[in-house]
Amino acid sequence: MGMEIMCLDLEGVLVPEIWIKVAEATGIDGLRVTTREMSDYDELMGYRLRLLDEHGLKLPDLQRVIAGMRPLDGAVEFLAWLKRHFQVVILSDTFYDFAAPLMERLDHPALFAHNLEVAVDGRVVGYSIRLADQKRAAVHAFQSLNFQVFAAGDSYNDTAMLMAADRGFLFNPPPNVVDDFPGLPVVTTYDGLRDHLIAASSRRLG
Amino acid sequence: MGMEIMCLDLEGVLVPEIWIKVAEATGIDGLRVTTREMSDYDELMGYRLRLLDEHGLKLPDLQRVIAGMRPLDGAVEFLAWLKRHFQVVILSDTFYDFAAPLMERLDHPALFAHNLEVAVDGRVVGYSIRLADQKRAAVHAFQSLNFQVFAAGDSYNDTAMLMAADRGFLFNPPPNVVDDFPGLPVVTTYDGLRDHLIAASSRRLG
Repeated sequence: MGMEIMCLDLEGVLVPEIWIKVAEATGIDGLRVTTREMSDYDELMGYRLRLLDEHGLKLPDLQRVIAGMRPLDGAVEFLAWLKRHFQVVILSDTFYDFAAPLMERLDHPALFAHNLEVAVDGRVVGYSIRLADQKRAAVHAFQSLNFQVFAAGDSYNDTAMLMAADRGFLFNPPPNVVDDFPGLPVVTTYDGLRDHLIAASSRRLG
Repeated sequence: MGMEIMCLDLEGVLVPEIWIKVAEATGIDGLRVTTREMSDYDELMGYRLRLLDEHGLKLPDLQRVIAGMRPLDGAVEFLAWLKRHFQVVILSDTFYDFAAPLMERLDHPALFAHNLEVAVDGRVVGYSIRLADQKRAAVHAFQSLNFQVFAAGDSYNDTAMLMAADRGFLFNPPPNVVDDFPGLPVVTTYDGLRDHLIAASSRRLG
């Protein structure tokens, strides 16, 4: 019996892409760009914060949009299955202040994320990355604690995690990520991911 | 805003001591000994497995007892509060096969524990410690991922975790643990632990 942990990306895997929902709700098209398209995260975040500032959008405006979001169809049921069979940690490059309403709907699995820097008036003035390359570092930390690590994610910022994991799966990724990482297996549904995890586990899962 | 994680012992903190319940249910007094009294875990486990074998008790017998257990009064509500305000990981020297029914009642927070070695006929023939001193190692791993680590536990096998943590609390410990570790703050209720965590956090918690 292996001792197995599952590292799961959040956006695009359990919940919609938060910034895309913000783009839709605010009509700011530039906010549609995500790590799926722009692989340099610092560059992407600097661009987003400039756009927010230009349009006078503050943290409470963003939180109102996010509070109206829901997990993806089937995500709650899949996570319930996952938690019964694996220890689950969500590794996300989002921010705790953004994710909170969505984590409430997922009943608060452990989330490793980052912090926003917010001014007294609510303006988002910066962000604090807890750790560069945190997803890969977390996988290595769990391996150092003698866990067999499985992982799933959809974007460029997941590939280091997926390659560091003992078994990594691209979940519903865009074509450019698939093209750039041909060695990673691709699944497109929760049922597909579940079947791969059952096959990969050293235990007999139901 | 710090990025904070809470490491919580399981038995004696969220659920009763499993082996004591097994001792009560089976009438085997020797199984009442826990890490509260015997600080050498390997010695304690060897003693337990010999007792089980002498009395012909197998894993399904133990699992029936454990399936009848409930979390401690107030534990579910406290854990719900904790998960809203911290990332929570349970660090326990119990075994996944033992903890499963209790984790179901706690809605499966991430659990770092160990594995039993079970023969085909259900006899518990040994155990596999995932990592020696796993609680301290997990605290250090989380600190290396730039988390501020809070921790609470009740027994000798928690003290290394509590001292490694940025803030560690003895929760409802027996007198001998308090005497041996006078530097660790003691709390005796969930409300008391919650108040200490609110005071210790760099964030404003409700």
